[in-house]
Amino acid sequence: MKELRKQSIEELTRLCEEIRQKIIQTVSHNGGHLSSNVGAVELIVAMHYVFDAQSDPFIFDVSHQAYTHKLLTDRWGRFDTLRTLDGISGYTRPDESPYDYFIAGHSSTSISLAVGAAKAIALKGEQTKRLPVALIGDGSLSAGMVYEALNELGDRRYPVVIILNDNKMSIAKPIGAISKFLSQAMAGDFYQKIKKTTEQILQYLPESATYMAKKFEESFKLITPGILFEELGIDYIGPIDGHDLESLIRAMQSARSLKKPVIIHAQTLKGKGYEMAEGYYEKWHGVGPFDVASGEAIKQGVSKNATTMYSEALMALAKEHDNVVGVTAAMPSGTGLSPLIQAYPNRFWDVAIAEQHAVTSMCSMAKEGFKPFVSIYSTFLQRAYDQVIHDACILNLNVVFAIDRAGIVGEDGETHQGAFDISYLSAIPNMTLMAPRDEASMHEALRYAYMHEGPLAIRYPRGSFGDCSAFASLPFEYAKAQTLQEGKDSILLVGYGSGVGKAVEVAHLLEEQGIQVGLVDLRFAKPLDETTLLSLSKNYETWYVISDSAKIGGIGTLLLSFKEKYDLSAKIHTFEYEDAFITHGETHLVEERLGISAPQIAQRILLLYNNK
Amino acid sequence: MKELRKQSIEELTRLCEEIRQKIIQTVSHNGGHLSSNVGAVELIVAMHYVFDAQSDPFIFDVSHQAYTHKLLTDRWGRFDTLRTLDGISGYTRPDESPYDYFIAGHSSTSISLAVGAAKAIALKGEQTKRLPVALIGDGSLSAGMVYEALNELGDRRYPVVIILNDNKMSIAKPIGAISKFLSQAMAGDFYQKIKKTTEQILQYLPESATYMAKKFEESFKLITPGILFEELGIDYIGPIDGHDLESLIRAMQSARSLKKPVIIHAQTLKGKGYEMAEGYYEKWHGVGPFDVASGEAIKQGVSKNATTMYSEALMALAKEHDNVVGVTAAMPSGTGLSPLIQAYPNRFWDVAIAEQHAVTSMCSMAKEGFKPFVSIYSTFLQRAYDQVIHDACILNLNVVFAIDRAGIVGEDGETHQGAFDISYLSAIPNMTLMAPRDEASMHEALRYAYMHEGPLAIRYPRGSFGDCSAFASLPFEYAKAQTLQEGKDSILLVGYGSGVGKAVEVAHLLEEQGIQVGLVDLRFAKPLDETTLLSLSKNYETWYVISDSAKIGGIGTLLLSFKEKYDLSAKIHTFEYEDAFITHGETHLVEERLGISAPQIAQRILLLYNNK
Repeated sequence: MKELRKQSIEELTRLCEEIRQKIIQTVSHNGGHLSSNVGAVELIVAMHYVFDAQSDPFIFDVSHQAYTHKLLTDRWGRFDTLRTLDGISGYTRPDESPYDYFIAGHSSTSISLAVGAAKAIALKGEQTKRLPVALIGDGSLSAGMVYEALNELGDRRYPVVIILNDNKMSIAKPIGAISKFLSQAMAGDFYQKIKKTTEQILQYLPESATYMAKKFEESFKLITPGILFEELGIDYIGPIDGHDLESLIRAMQSARSLKKPVIIHAQTLKGKGYEMAEGYYEKWHGVGPFDVASGEAIKQGVSKNATTMYSEALMALAKEHDNVVGVTAAMPSGTGLSPLIQAYPNRFWDVAIAEQHAVTSMCSMAKEGFKPFVSIYSTFLQRAYDQVIHDACILNLNVVFAIDRAGIVGEDGETHQGAFDISYLSAIPNMTLMAPRDEASMHEALRYAYMHEGPLAIRYPRGSFGDCSAFASLPFEYAKAQTLQEGKDSILLVGYGSGVGKAVEVAHLLEEQGIQVGLVDLRFAKPLDETTLLSLSKNYETWYVISDSAKIGGIGTLLLSFKEKYDLSAKIHTFEYEDAFITHGETHLVEERLGISAPQIAQRILLLYNNK
Repeated sequence: MKELRKQSIEELTRLCEEIRQKIIQTVSHNGGHLSSNVGAVELIVAMHYVFDAQSDPFIFDVSHQAYTHKLLTDRWGRFDTLRTLDGISGYTRPDESPYDYFIAGHSSTSISLAVGAAKAIALKGEQTKRLPVALIGDGSLSAGMVYEALNELGDRRYPVVIILNDNKMSIAKPIGAISKFLSQAMAGDFYQKIKKTTEQILQYLPESATYMAKKFEESFKLITPGILFEELGIDYIGPIDGHDLESLIRAMQSARSLKKPVIIHAQTLKGKGYEMAEGYYEKWHGVGPFDVASGEAIKQGVSKNATTMYSEALMALAKEHDNVVGVTAAMPSGTGLSPLIQAYPNRFWDVAIAEQHAVTSMCSMAKEGFKPFVSIYSTFLQRAYDQVIHDACILNLNVVFAIDRAGIVGEDGETHQGAFDISYLSAIPNMTLMAPRDEASMHEALRYAYMHEGPLAIRYPRGSFGDCSAFASLPFEYAKAQTLQEGKDSILLVGYGSGVGKAVEVAHLLEEQGIQVGLVDLRFAKPLDETTLLSLSKNYETWYVISDSAKIGGIGTLLLSFKEKYDLSAKIHTFEYEDAFITHGETHLVEERLGISAPQIAQRILLLYNNK
C-alpha cells in the first residue's frame, strides 16, 4: 500500500496525474468504467491520506469507481489484467485484496454496509480505532435502500463518514427531485418553493406568527443542500471542490473528528482529465476498448446486439400502438430505450436507479389500459422481485418485462451475471416466460408480447445471438415451441433463447461427426409446449438442454417436472450453469472455463453417445 | 356507494361513529387490523366526500386501513364475512369491487402506483376529470420505494394527492429519522440541529454572509415537517387534525385544486374510538378475535406457535454467544424479536419497514465476525431478494435468514402467503436451506445454524407445527435428513418443515387403512441428503412430497433433479402448491380448498395405491 501521509500536496497532485493516466491507458485497452474512475481520483487519494484502509472499512458504492483504490493498495503491477479472466476485477472484491472490504456491483448498498460496520465496531469497542467510510455517487441516491439506511443512521447516529461524489451525472442524465435538489445549492428555485410553502403554512398559523414567518422567508436564501441530510440527522459538510486535494483532506479530517454520521458533499467532473470524456453523460460511463488520441471505439465485433434488436422492435411497436409505454431504471442506452425516450418523451421514461418504483409505476399504467415494457437487466430485476409478484402478477396485469443481459455478461462478473431470472420468475403464478433466438424472432416475440394478456417476461443476452439464419422464424403462439430440425440418432437438443444459436452450432459439430440430432427452440419456458414435447419424446431418448441460465430452477428442471408428469423415459441432461457464482472475463472464455462452449458441449454429447 | 356529498358535517360525524362501531364489532369476531382502521375513519370519509371513487384512483397503501372504504362502497352488508374464506378480503382487491383500484398487502407501493396512474391520466387527456389519491401511513415512509417514487413525482410534478396518515406509531414503535422528523413540527430539536449546521456552513462562507446567516438561524424555529417534502418538489399542507372532518375536507379540496403533487399531513390517533386500543403500538395493529368490553383476546388455540419457539431458541443462543445479533423489519412481535431487542438493545434491532437495508446492514456485521439472524416473513423477504444474493451470498457470509410465515398464512391471503421462498432461494449459490419440524428441532436447527459457515435460511410456518412428538429430534448435521420410520408398502412420505407434521398425520391415516409407509424428514432442502435418499430409493417405489411451498422450484423439483442425476426409478408426486395465488381464509379451510389437508392427501395416496 502506498504511504501517502508523508507526501506533500504537490507530490499527491502528481500521483493523481499518474493514476489518471494509468486508468485511461488501461481502460482504453481493456474497457471498463472510465469517467467515474478518472472523476474520483482526488477523492480516493484524499480518503487514503486521511483514513486507514487497513483498519477503517472503505466501502465503495457500486465500486465501479474504485480503480484508484486498487492502484493505491496492492494492484498497480497487475492492473493491466483489469476485467480479464483471472485478472483484476472491475469491482472491489475481498478475495482479491485485504483492502477491499466488501463486494459491490449493484448500486446503493454502501450506506447499509457502513451502518452494519458501525454497529459491529461499537459492539467490539473499537470506536476509537476504526471508522466506516462510504464513497457514493449522486446517481446512487435515487435507489430506495439508501433512504432506508439513512433513516436508521440518522436516528441512531453511528459514527460514519459518507463521501458524496456529486458529478451531477450519475450513469445517464441526472434524474429526479433529489438530483435537482443537490444542484440548487444556495439557489433561487428552492427559495421560490419555500416562499410558496410559507404562504400555505400561514393559513394554518395564528396571525401573530406572520412577522416571524416573513423573517424566515427572507433569510431562506441561505439554505444549502445539506438541509436534506440534516433533517435526517446526518451532519453535512459542503459543497466542496472534489478535485481540490487540500479542501478534500481538510473536510475529511474534520468529518473524522466528529464521531457522528456526516456527509461530505464533493462536486466533481465526471471524466476529469480526459478531455474526450469530460462533461459527457452516459457515453463514457462504461466503455469498451478505445483509441486514447481520437476517443474512437476500437470495434471488436460487427454483429448487431440483442439490445439494438429489442430497441428497434419496440420502436416499431410503439409507432403502431399508442398504448405502448416503457421504463428503464438508469440504463437508457444499456437497455436500448434511449431512442424511444427521445421519440416519445411522454410514453418512455428513465426513472433513475429505482427498479422497485419502475416496476410498480408501470403496473398502474397497465391497469389503465397501457402496455408497459419494463426494460431492466436480469441481475437488476432482482431488486424488484417483490414488485413483480405483488404489483404485476397477483392482478395478472399486462406488463412485459424485457430482461436484457440474461446469461453471462462477461467482464462485469459475479454481480452482473443474469443467471437467476428463470428460476425466480417461473415460480410466480400468472407469469409467462419466453425468449427470442435471433433478430427475426425478437420482432415476432415483441409482436406476440403486445397481444398477450397477463405478465410476461422476455429474456435476451448481452451482445449478439448465435447464427440461426438457417431457420425461418414463425410468429409466436402461446406456449408453442418451434421444431427446427428432425434427427435420426435419438438425440434432441432443446434450446432456449440464446441457447438456440448455441444448439445450432452444436448440431453442426455433431453432424460433422456423423450424428444427426433433432433441434427444438422451446420459445416458452412457461408454460411449456407439452404437445410438441410429448410428440418429440416418442422419437428422442436423450435430451440435451442448452440455455444460459442457472441449473437449479432453470429450463432443465422445468422439463423434469414435465417428464415426471407424463412418466416419460427420455433422459434429460442440461448444460445450464452449475450452482456457483460465475467469474468475470470475456464471455466465451468464461463459458469455456465452465465447459459449456459449443465445442465442449458437442464433445460431451459425443462421449455420452459413444459410451452408450 | 354511499352518497356523502349531500350530508352535513353532523351527519358525516354520525356516519363515522357508525363505521367505527361496525369495524370494532366485526374485527372483534373475525380478527383483522383494528387500530389502523378505526384511526383512519374520518380520513377516508373525507376522501369519499371530496374525491370520487368512481373516477379518481383511490390507492390505499398496504390497504390494511381500507375497511371504511369498503363499508362506504358496496360491502356494508357482507362485511361480517371479513377475512373468511370466500368473504371480504382484509385488503383492497379489484376483483372484489370496482371501487378497489389496486391490490396491496405489502407496504409503500401507493406512491409508485399513483405516479403510474397520473402518467396514464395525462396520456389519456383525463386530467380535468381524474386525480390519483394515495393514502399512506407514516410507517410506510421508511421503505425505500417511497423515495424512489417521490423522486420521480417531485421531478415531473404530476398532479397527485398524497394523504399522509401520521399516527406516530406505524406497526410497532416509530423508528427512524423520518419518523422523528415528522414529530418535530415547529420544534426545538430540529432548530438545534439547524443551528449547528449553520455554524458549520459559516466555515465555508465569506464573512459578509454571517449577518444573513444569523438572521436565518434566528428565524428557523418556524420550520415545518413539510420542508422534507417541499425539498423533493411536493407541495405540503399540514399538519392537520386527522379526526377533524371539516379541516380534512378543506385541506383535500384545496389539494385537489392545486393540479400538482401535494401531500396532506394528517395527524391521527391509532385506535381512535376504542379506548382499549388508543395509544397502543403493536398490540392492536393486527388482532385475532377479542371481547369488545374487556379487550381480552378470545383464545382459539393453545398450541405454542413456531414464532415463539424461534424466539426462545434464539434467546438461548444469544445468551450463550455474544456475537449473535439480529434484525427485524417492523415486525418485532410478529417475528418474536421483541424480547431480544428488550434484553439486548445493542445487538437486536428493528429497522422499520426496510427489508433491503435490514439484510445488507447485517452482511457487514457478518463480515466483522458477528452472526446475524435476519428475521423476516417469507413474503417480505421478496423485497430483499437482490440483497440476499448480492450482499450475503456472493461473499458466502455467515448470515442466517429466519423465515417466518412460510406457507399458507391464513386470513391475510394472496399478498402474504409464504409460497415462494424455496423457489427463489434455492437457485442462489452458497445458500443452504433447512427447516425444523417442531419445537425440539427448532432449537436444534438454531444451534446448527449458529455453527454453520455461509448463508443459511430456516423456514417455519405461521402458527403451530403438527404433532411430531413420537420422534426424537436429533442434532442437525450438514445435509443430513432424518428417517423417522420405515414402511412396508413401498410408499415413502418425504416431509419438509411443517410438512413433516402433516406427513406424520397422513402416515397415521394410512396406517388405519392397513398401509405402512416410510417417513423421512428432509431437514435440508439444499443440499439434499443424497446418501439417505439413495438408500431410501432402494426400498420405496413411490414418493410423496409434503411441504408448504410452491410446486414450481419447490421440494418436488429439487428431488426430481436428484432422481435424474442418479437415474432412479422412484415415482415422485408432490403435494405442494399448484401454480396459482392462494386466497385468504382460515389456513385449514384454504388447505382443504386446495386439496392438501392431511385427510385429502391420505385419500389421494390410497386411491393411487389401490389403482396400481
